[in-house]
Amino acid sequence: MAKRVKKRDFPVSKVRRYLEPGPVVLVSSRFRDETDIMTMGWHTMMEFTPSLVGCVISEGNHSFELIRKSGECVINVPTTALIDIVVKIGSTSGAEIDKFQAFGLTAGKGSKVKAPLIAECHANFECRVHDDALVDRYNFFIFEVVKAHVAPRPKHPETLHYLGDGEFELSGRIISRRRLFRPEML
Amino acid sequence: MAKRVKKRDFPVSKVRRYLEPGPVVLVSSRFRDETDIMTMGWHTMMEFTPSLVGCVISEGNHSFELIRKSGECVINVPTTALIDIVVKIGSTSGAEIDKFQAFGLTAGKGSKVKAPLIAECHANFECRVHDDALVDRYNFFIFEVVKAHVAPRPKHPETLHYLGDGEFELSGRIISRRRLFRPEML
Repeated sequence: MAKRVKKRDFPVSKVRRYLEPGPVVLVSSRFRDETDIMTMGWHTMMEFTPSLVGCVISEGNHSFELIRKSGECVINVPTTALIDIVVKIGSTSGAEIDKFQAFGLTAGKGSKVKAPLIAECHANFECRVHDDALVDRYNFFIFEVVKAHVAPRPKHPETLHYLGDGEFELSGRIISRRRLFRPEML
Repeated sequence: MAKRVKKRDFPVSKVRRYLEPGPVVLVSSRFRDETDIMTMGWHTMMEFTPSLVGCVISEGNHSFELIRKSGECVINVPTTALIDIVVKIGSTSGAEIDKFQAFGLTAGKGSKVKAPLIAECHANFECRVHDDALVDRYNFFIFEVVKAHVAPRPKHPETLHYLGDGEFELSGRIISRRRLFRPEML
């Protein structure tokens, strides 16, 4: 059973710290009484303020309709400890199983959205659909992160980065090049 | 001086292997006689075939107009060996300097686009603008990768993943979970 992680409020304008390096994330959603979780690797930051994240959620995914109808989701950042659950979530369908129950995950309560937070993840970003102009053409949603919860430790969680073919790259060493940046770029 | 890297043709439908883990990339462009290079961290895969990549290129960047006018660019994947050059490219403007010359980089010839390839990078993806519907609103371009060149070795290049605040996370260990995937998902 995976461990729950205690979190603190985190500024939404700084969620790039967790999303920009490209980790696989878990997207949780709710519409009426139904919840679902999906694994997602195709996402990008788009703006600091409002805090915008663009991502591809295939219409073939059970979560697609829950997110489209509710206009909400939570983007959760799992660490390596959850690798097997991440893969299993990506290999099953919410049309057939309740993923929270099947994988022993805890549905936490959000403060701005009704979609559930995954308590076992390092960070939870509550999101509302900001722009659906490219959903029909590319299944591309633009979300605004309206509330962020992040575990204060570890400072650098070990995250999963998908390579295709069943392989993941884990996040590794940290290097600072602060001295080479112009101050206004930091 | 950074070393040039020998490459082979690579299937465009598989560029997710290099872009999905979220590395910082260098975007090179040309319009008429002018070239430029910019550092970019906000990008995502959007489709396998055609091979689509969405990314944010700020209009404040000198490259923006070159890419908009030419409808082309090259997405280059640098490794950790190039970290200082990556930061310096991100901290200078092509309106003031020739970045290929200033940083000792070699402009290679593309086979499908006129934008230059950066020979010192591990991979070069020649791109054409596929959809500019969100450029005015979000500076968000959707490119099609029309030709890919990748170094055969190392199999897992050490890439840079930006955290903000002048800090980079490097790619680390590789873990396979192939056995947990449904065959059609690989």
